[in-house]
Amino acid sequence: MALFSTLTKPKTMETLQTLNSHRSIRKYKNLKVEQNLLNTILEAGCRASTTGNMQVYSIVVTTNEGIKEKLAPAHFNQPGVVQAPVILTFCADFNRFNKWCKLSKAEPGYDNFLSFMTAAIDALLVAQNVCVAAEDKGLGICYYGTTTYNAQKIIDTLNLPKGVVPITTVTLGYADEQPDLTDRLPLEAVVHQDTYKDYSPDDIDRIYKEKESSPLYQQFVKENNKETLAQVFTDVRYKKADNEHFSNELMKVLKNQGFL
Amino acid sequence: MALFSTLTKPKTMETLQTLNSHRSIRKYKNLKVEQNLLNTILEAGCRASTTGNMQVYSIVVTTNEGIKEKLAPAHFNQPGVVQAPVILTFCADFNRFNKWCKLSKAEPGYDNFLSFMTAAIDALLVAQNVCVAAEDKGLGICYYGTTTYNAQKIIDTLNLPKGVVPITTVTLGYADEQPDLTDRLPLEAVVHQDTYKDYSPDDIDRIYKEKESSPLYQQFVKENNKETLAQVFTDVRYKKADNEHFSNELMKVLKNQGFL
Repeated sequence: MALFSTLTKPKTMETLQTLNSHRSIRKYKNLKVEQNLLNTILEAGCRASTTGNMQVYSIVVTTNEGIKEKLAPAHFNQPGVVQAPVILTFCADFNRFNKWCKLSKAEPGYDNFLSFMTAAIDALLVAQNVCVAAEDKGLGICYYGTTTYNAQKIIDTLNLPKGVVPITTVTLGYADEQPDLTDRLPLEAVVHQDTYKDYSPDDIDRIYKEKESSPLYQQFVKENNKETLAQVFTDVRYKKADNEHFSNELMKVLKNQGFL
Repeated sequence: MALFSTLTKPKTMETLQTLNSHRSIRKYKNLKVEQNLLNTILEAGCRASTTGNMQVYSIVVTTNEGIKEKLAPAHFNQPGVVQAPVILTFCADFNRFNKWCKLSKAEPGYDNFLSFMTAAIDALLVAQNVCVAAEDKGLGICYYGTTTYNAQKIIDTLNLPKGVVPITTVTLGYADEQPDLTDRLPLEAVVHQDTYKDYSPDDIDRIYKEKESSPLYQQFVKENNKETLAQVFTDVRYKKADNEHFSNELMKVLKNQGFL
């Protein structure tokens, strides 16, 4: 058993406190998440707005060890995925809605890119609601962007039919670590008043100064043998060649799943 | 002044209660949202997870009457947009990050579809956090899916540079209406255990039964001179020809903004 306690927070923690306390949790206790608790969280998640209240999303809740093992390679076997008690795959889903249309003498016209975006938006708003609810209930979560990289592997593993595309993945469980809050750019960096004000070189320097000067990121630059922090992103973590490869794969997925 | 009070809720409302009380608010009191309150909400919103903590999104906060008027047609002049004190446009934004890279001797490789999806996901998780924070603080919100329909108009009005695409729009203000909670499909309709279980015709009938039999939706069918509720969606609200038109427009936007 772990030495760490779960994130310590009072049961009546206010919402802003929940939001402001968010950490990504990549190490979980060997404890199941009770079905009742999970349902409470998912129910609250599903109160999120969706386009025309169509609810064109699905959530695949994977707890079966065998299926979790099959899912892990799609997320490059990151330890947080392998070890999490619950893996939630949030999907854009017009399959259910299309079936309903066809059974209701209606001809669905949702085999296009706009409909994919509509369904992806639905899935993501629900995902964030689920995460907020989970954290409020003392659970830890982590998002995995790998879902859009390896969507086809996830489709194959989870048997997602035509009309369904996985958009993001969230792991869920009781935290077995208590990481520090991560840095954020100052609010002025991401908020524009009335219209977009483009950034001058001075603006960029000011905005990224704190991030660049933090010991954590300086260590990051050193470990990766790079000259600047930005180079760690462009040359190591999110490389052009990878992005282009996975863009092509994702486009193929949209085509195969009936959205292009 | 309005006769309605704002949504009545205690200041210490718990998070799940906030989530479970969500209504879309389309009618606002003629009251400004204070800058301090808005900043508190936006700060909490920006605690949301983003890919690699890159924060590749921007939020355009429009309160200027003239710019709000110019923005309204992009949302088909829906009264809720015209009348809201604050319009938030959440954008996928690689412009800032790319500028930082170039100033840091790094060559960004984010001019592709995967990067667009990454940035759109960032923008949407932040959007939902902002909405939860706003509702917790007693404000009303409403999402407008029209953003992806008329992205080019929004780009022109808000001066969004290359690398920036508007993804969703949220209106914000003090509610001047208190609508009922809207229906949701039963949890079993949207949640799958371990892998996706496709729906039989019986499943679809069971899942949509309550929605179809509600007086609200039966009225909806009658008013639109349709035979079934699904036909209101396919023939009136979200038509194939419109979806295809706006898909093409959105693809053009992705190309113009440097993501395809």
